Amino acid sequence: MIKLGIIGAGRIGRVHSESITKYVKGAEIKAISDVKVTPELTQWAKEMGIANVYEDYRQILQDPEIDAVLVCSSTNTHAPISIEAATAGKHVFCEKPVDADPVKIREVLAAVEKAGVKFQVGFNRRFDHNFKAIKQRVEAGDIGEPHIIRVTSRDPDAPPIEYVKVSGGMFFDMTIHDFDMIRYLSGSEVEEVFAVGQVLVDPAIGEAGDIDTAVITLKLANGAIGVIDNSRKAVYGYDQRAEVFGSKGAVQTRNDTDSTAIYSCASGVIAEKPKYFFLERYMQSFADEMICFIDAVVNDKPTKVNGNDGLQPVLIALAAKKSLDERRPVKVSEVG
Amino acid sequence: MIKLGIIGAGRIGRVHSESITKYVKGAEIKAISDVKVTPELTQWAKEMGIANVYEDYRQILQDPEIDAVLVCSSTNTHAPISIEAATAGKHVFCEKPVDADPVKIREVLAAVEKAGVKFQVGFNRRFDHNFKAIKQRVEAGDIGEPHIIRVTSRDPDAPPIEYVKVSGGMFFDMTIHDFDMIRYLSGSEVEEVFAVGQVLVDPAIGEAGDIDTAVITLKLANGAIGVIDNSRKAVYGYDQRAEVFGSKGAVQTRNDTDSTAIYSCASGVIAEKPKYFFLERYMQSFADEMICFIDAVVNDKPTKVNGNDGLQPVLIALAAKKSLDERRPVKVSEVG
Amino acid sequence: MIKLGIIGAGRIGRVHSESITKYVKGAEIKAISDVKVTPELTQWAKEMGIANVYEDYRQILQDPEIDAVLVCSSTNTHAPISIEAATAGKHVFCEKPVDADPVKIREVLAAVEKAGVKFQVGFNRRFDHNFKAIKQRVEAGDIGEPHIIRVTSRDPDAPPIEYVKVSGGMFFDMTIHDFDMIRYLSGSEVEEVFAVGQVLVDPAIGEAGDIDTAVITLKLANGAIGVIDNSRKAVYGYDQRAEVFGSKGAVQTRNDTDSTAIYSCASGVIAEKPKYFFLERYMQSFADEMICFIDAVVNDKPTKVNGNDGLQPVLIALAAKKSLDERRPVKVSEVG
Amino acid sequence: MIKLGIIGAGRIGRVHSESITKYVKGAEIKAISDVKVTPELTQWAKEMGIANVYEDYRQILQDPEIDAVLVCSSTNTHAPISIEAATAGKHVFCEKPVDADPVKIREVLAAVEKAGVKFQVGFNRRFDHNFKAIKQRVEAGDIGEPHIIRVTSRDPDAPPIEYVKVSGGMFFDMTIHDFDMIRYLSGSEVEEVFAVGQVLVDPAIGEAGDIDTAVITLKLANGAIGVIDNSRKAVYGYDQRAEVFGSKGAVQTRNDTDSTAIYSCASGVIAEKPKYFFLERYMQSFADEMICFIDAVVNDKPTKVNGNDGLQPVLIALAAKKSLDERRPVKVSEVG
Repeated sequence: MIKLGIIGAGRIGRVHSESITKYVKGAEIKAISDVKVTPELTQWAKEMGIANVYEDYRQILQDPEIDAVLVCSSTNTHAPISIEAATAGKHVFCEKPVDADPVKIREVLAAVEKAGVKFQVGFNRRFDHNFKAIKQRVEAGDIGEPHIIRVTSRDPDAPPIEYVKVSGGMFFDMTIHDFDMIRYLSGSEVEEVFAVGQVLVDPAIGEAGDIDTAVITLKLANGAIGVIDNSRKAVYGYDQRAEVFGSKGAVQTRNDTDSTAIYSCASGVIAEKPKYFFLERYMQSFADEMICFIDAVVNDKPTKVNGNDGLQPVLIALAAKKSLDERRPVKVSEVG
Repeated sequence: MIKLGIIGAGRIGRVHSESITKYVKGAEIKAISDVKVTPELTQWAKEMGIANVYEDYRQILQDPEIDAVLVCSSTNTHAPISIEAATAGKHVFCEKPVDADPVKIREVLAAVEKAGVKFQVGFNRRFDHNFKAIKQRVEAGDIGEPHIIRVTSRDPDAPPIEYVKVSGGMFFDMTIHDFDMIRYLSGSEVEEVFAVGQVLVDPAIGEAGDIDTAVITLKLANGAIGVIDNSRKAVYGYDQRAEVFGSKGAVQTRNDTDSTAIYSCASGVIAEKPKYFFLERYMQSFADEMICFIDAVVNDKPTKVNGNDGLQPVLIALAAKKSLDERRPVKVSEVG
Repeated sequence: MIKLGIIGAGRIGRVHSESITKYVKGAEIKAISDVKVTPELTQWAKEMGIANVYEDYRQILQDPEIDAVLVCSSTNTHAPISIEAATAGKHVFCEKPVDADPVKIREVLAAVEKAGVKFQVGFNRRFDHNFKAIKQRVEAGDIGEPHIIRVTSRDPDAPPIEYVKVSGGMFFDMTIHDFDMIRYLSGSEVEEVFAVGQVLVDPAIGEAGDIDTAVITLKLANGAIGVIDNSRKAVYGYDQRAEVFGSKGAVQTRNDTDSTAIYSCASGVIAEKPKYFFLERYMQSFADEMICFIDAVVNDKPTKVNGNDGLQPVLIALAAKKSLDERRPVKVSEVG
Repeated sequence: MIKLGIIGAGRIGRVHSESITKYVKGAEIKAISDVKVTPELTQWAKEMGIANVYEDYRQILQDPEIDAVLVCSSTNTHAPISIEAATAGKHVFCEKPVDADPVKIREVLAAVEKAGVKFQVGFNRRFDHNFKAIKQRVEAGDIGEPHIIRVTSRDPDAPPIEYVKVSGGMFFDMTIHDFDMIRYLSGSEVEEVFAVGQVLVDPAIGEAGDIDTAVITLKLANGAIGVIDNSRKAVYGYDQRAEVFGSKGAVQTRNDTDSTAIYSCASGVIAEKPKYFFLERYMQSFADEMICFIDAVVNDKPTKVNGNDGLQPVLIALAAKKSLDERRPVKVSEVG
C-alpha cells in the first residue's frame, strides 16, 4: 500500500482523488493541499477519507510516509513543484501541460532524472478504451505502415472568456491532447506543423487573442501525415474521434454514448448524442492512468507517459502557434 | 433475344415491364394484355416500346413467337392462366401467391411438368441484395447449423380496407413473403406453425376479419426455429430485416436507406428512415428475378423459385391461419 | 450510513460486495456469511473491509446494527431466509429467482408485508443503461401503444452439465430475466405463453432433461405480443438486445462492446464482439440496483423491483415449461 | 426527344452511353466518335442502338439533328473540342478537367457564352445520393454556418505508372473531385491552399514525379476551413466520406456497401467493405448528372455544374501543386 499526496484540490485534483478511492487498489491518499482550504474542502476530504488537508504543499513533500505526489495545482506551478517534489524524493505525477516553456520542462526532466524518481504526465486519453483499441491495432501491425492519422476533437461548448485569456490559447489547453494523441497513435515524432485557425464560434474569443476553430497538419518523422480538426463548440456534444490509415488497413473510433438505443419514428432514426464532456467521456481513463502510475512506482517500471511525452506536445503547440502567426509551416526544431 | 408476353397490366405487371426494359438484356416484351385496355395503357405501352396490347390474354398464348409469359393478373386467375400458358408451351413466370388453394397449385405444377416448361414464382425478395448476403453466409457454412431464423417484416401503412377484405388475410398477402424467406434462408421445410395475432393498428381491419399485428413461430425440419414478426403499420417506414443464428455465428441485415448521412445536432444523432415501401426497397430484386427467369429459359437451367417454392408458403399460411383460429400449434401436414 | 449483511459469499454475493464498496455511498457491509468459511474468504473479506465473517447467517439476522440483508445464498434457501430476515425486521434484497414455487414466493411476500420491511428482487437488468433507455422511450410515450416487444438473449457458452441438472431448466435460470424484461418494457402483465424449444447446442443438455434453444411467444394483457429468442451458446459472445415497437415508433438496443473501434482491411470491416458475459455486460447495473435498494431503505421509498416482480416471471417460466411439455399455449393463470 | 453525340468511346464515354440508354428519358444517342473505330466498338454501338460510329468527331458537330455533345475524349482535347462544339451551336457536356490550363478553360467559357449554349462539367459526385444528402442539410440551414468541411477520398489501388506519368498528377486526376466537393458542400470559394504530400504507397509513383498520399488544407472565403485526405491505395476499397460541421450541427456520410449484412462470429463482427471503385460507387450519379444536363438543355435551365465550377477546381489544384513544391500556403489568386 503506497501513500499519495495530492497538490491542488481543484477539479482535476478531486477527479483523481475520487478515481483513486474507487478504482485504484494498493494506493491511499494520505494528504491533499490547496492554496485555499475552505470548510467545503475539509468536509469533502473527510468524506473521501483523506486524513490531512494542508494549505502548504510543502507539508506533503516533507512527510516521509508519502511515496508519490500528484501535481494538480495551477499550470504555472507545475514545473517548480515537480522539481521540488522530485528533489524531495517523491515520485511525480504531473498534470498536463508540464509548462508552456520547453526550458522549464527540461529542468523538470533533469531534476526527475537526477532524483531517480518516476515521472508521469497526465495525458489520460492514452488510457481511454477507444484510443487504446486503435493503438493495439497499430502495434499489432494490422494497419501496416501508418500513412494518415486523423484526430477530431471538438468541445461541447467554449470555456469562459476569462479562462481563454489565461489558458495559453487553444493549442495549449485543448489541442495539446491531440498533439499527444498523434504521437501516441503513430508511434512517431512530429517534425513540421502547419496550422489554420479561425474565430467562428465567438468573436470574444478572437478579441481575447485566441482562435476557436482550427485544422492542423503535421508531418511525422516516419513519413506519415497527421491532421487534427478542432472546434470549441460542437452543439451535439463532445466529439472525440480518431483514425489511423495505413498500408494494410485503417482503424477508426466513434464517440461513446450513454446507451446504444436507436429510436425510429416518423421524423427519423435517432441515436444518442456523444457523452457530454471530458468527465463523462474519459472518467475511466483517469483511473487507468493512475493505476499505471501506481504500478510504475510499486513495481519499478517505466511510466507510460514519460518526460519526453510531456515535452513534445508543448513543442508542437509552440510550432502550431508560430505557424498560425506567421502563416507558414514551422518545423518543431525551430521552437525547441 | 427471347420474346415475352405480360398478362395483366396492373402495378406489378408494369413494374416487371419497366425493369425488363431497363435491366434485362436478351429479352423483349412483345405484348401485354389486360382485361381493360384504356387509352392510358395504350400510351404507356407505346412509351415502353411494347408493340401489342390485347384485352384477351389468349392472343398472347396463341402467338408462336412468344416464348414466355408473366402471369401478373388478379390472384384468382394465376392458376388457370398458368395452366393454359404451360399447356400452350409457354414458359411461365407466375406472381405470388400461385393460389390460396393447394389443390389448384398442385394442378399448376402438374401442368407445368407435363408441358416441360420453366416455371418461376415471384418471390422477388430472394433476389434482394441483403437477403442474398445472408443466404451466402448460410451456404458458405459461416453460420454452421442454423438454430434460429428471425424475420421482421412491417409495412409502412395498412392497405385500404377494401383490399384487406379480398386479400385473403395478412398471412396470404404479406406474411407469405416471410414464410418463403424462412424456407429460403434456413434451407429447410417448415413442419409446424404457431401464430399469435392481434388487431392493434386499426379496428376496421378486425371488423374485416383480419389481424394487423402478428408473431409466428415455426418449427423446421432441420430442428431450427423460425420466428416472424409482422405489423401493418410501422410509422418510420418499411421495416425489412432478417437474422440467421447458428452454431458458428450469426448474420443479420438492417434496412436500406436513401443515403448514409448522419446528422448530429442538439437534439440527437439522426439517420435516415428505411426506404419507404416495396417499390423503393425491392426494385432491383424485381429486375434480378427476371434476369434469373430469362437465364433459366434461355440456358435451360432450373429456375431459382420453383413450383414447390410456390406451394409451401401457401401451406404455411394456411397452417398459420388455422393456428390463429384454433389457438394451437398446427402442423403443415394438417393442411397439405 | 446504513449497515448491510450479505448472506452467501459465492459469485453474486461477491459481485454485490464489490459494487457496494466501489459505488454505493451511504452503505457499509458489516458482515458476510457463508456455509463454508475458507481462509480465502476471510482474506477476501479483509481486503474488502468487511469486519465480520460468519458461517451462520443467523448471526447477521441477530445483529441489531444491521439494517438490511442481501440474500445471495443458494436458490432453494432464498425463500426461507428471506422470511426469517423479514421477520427479524431486516430489509431484504433477494437474488432471483425468489423460488421456483409460487406458493413459497407468496409466503415470502406475506412475511415481508407483515414485517413492513423493504423487499427488492435482483432483476439487475432493469438498471442496465440500454434497457433503461428503452423504458424511458416507452414511458415518455415516444413508442405510443406497444405492439411487439422483442428480447434476444443468448449466452456466450452453455453452463456445465452439472449446473443444468440442478438449475431448474433454461426458463428458470436464464429466460427468467427475459420474462422480467418483457414485463418491464411493456408495462403489462403476461397472460399466455407458447414455447418452442430444441436441443441444438449440446445433446448432453437434452439428456439432462433441458433445452438449449428456444423461442417463446407471450400474449400480454394490453394486447401487445412479446417474443423472446434464447440460445445457450452464441460463439460471438453475450447477445443481449431488445426492441419495443408500437403505434408511434420503435426503439431498439444493440450490444455493448469494449470499444467503438472499427477495423477496415482487405478481408472486411470488423467491429468488436459484444462484451463477453454478464459480469462484463451488466456490472454497472449490479451497483445501480443496490443504489436503488439503499435509497428505498434510507428514504422509505418503494423498491423498483417489488414482490410481484419476483413472482410473475416464475409464473411465466412455469407456463413456458408446461407449454413446452404439452405443446400448446398455456395461460399464466393455469399455473398461478 | 433530343439527340446526342458522344465524342470519345473510352471508358467514360461508354459509361455515359449506358446510363443514358438505361435511365435518361427524352434523350437518344445518335452518334459516337472515336479516334480509333474498332470492330469491337462497332459491335458495342450496335448493341447500344447507336446508329452512327465515326472516326472524325466533326461529323457529329456537322450533324444538324444533334442538339448536344458529350466531350469524353482525352483530356488535352477537352478545351478545343468544347470550343468547336459550342461554336457549332451544340450544347456541351464536358468531362473533367476541362483543361489543366486556366487560360484555355476561360477560352472555353467565352466560346460557350458567345454561342449561348448550355455547358456542364462532369463533376458527377455532386449527384451522388450521399453528398446530396449533406448538401441538403447545409442548404436547409441545419448545419448553420459551416466551420469545417472534411473530405476523405482514397482509391482502392494506385493506377498504372504509365497513367501517373501523363495524368497531370494526383491533384489533377483524383483530388480535383474533392476540390469540387469542398466548394459544393461549403457553398464558398477557396482562397488559400496548403498541401502536404508523401510517397508512401509506391516509390515508382515518386519516381514518376507524383505523390500518393496527401492532406490538403483549404481556407474558404466564408471563413470555413476545408480539409481533404487522399491516398492512392486503401486496401479495404474505395473510401469516400465527407462531413460538414458548423454552428448548428454536423452531417457526415459513410461508405456505401453491397449489402447491410453484419456477420458475427468468434473472430469479430464483420460488415462489408465499401463498394470497390467509382463505377460501383457512383454509377447512379453518372445517370443523374446526365438527366440534369438534358433537363437544362430541354427546359432552358442553368446547368448545375457550370463553367466556373469547371475552372475553380483546376485553380485550386494548381495552387495545391505550387504549395507542395514551395512548401508554403498558396493563395488561389496567385495561380489564377
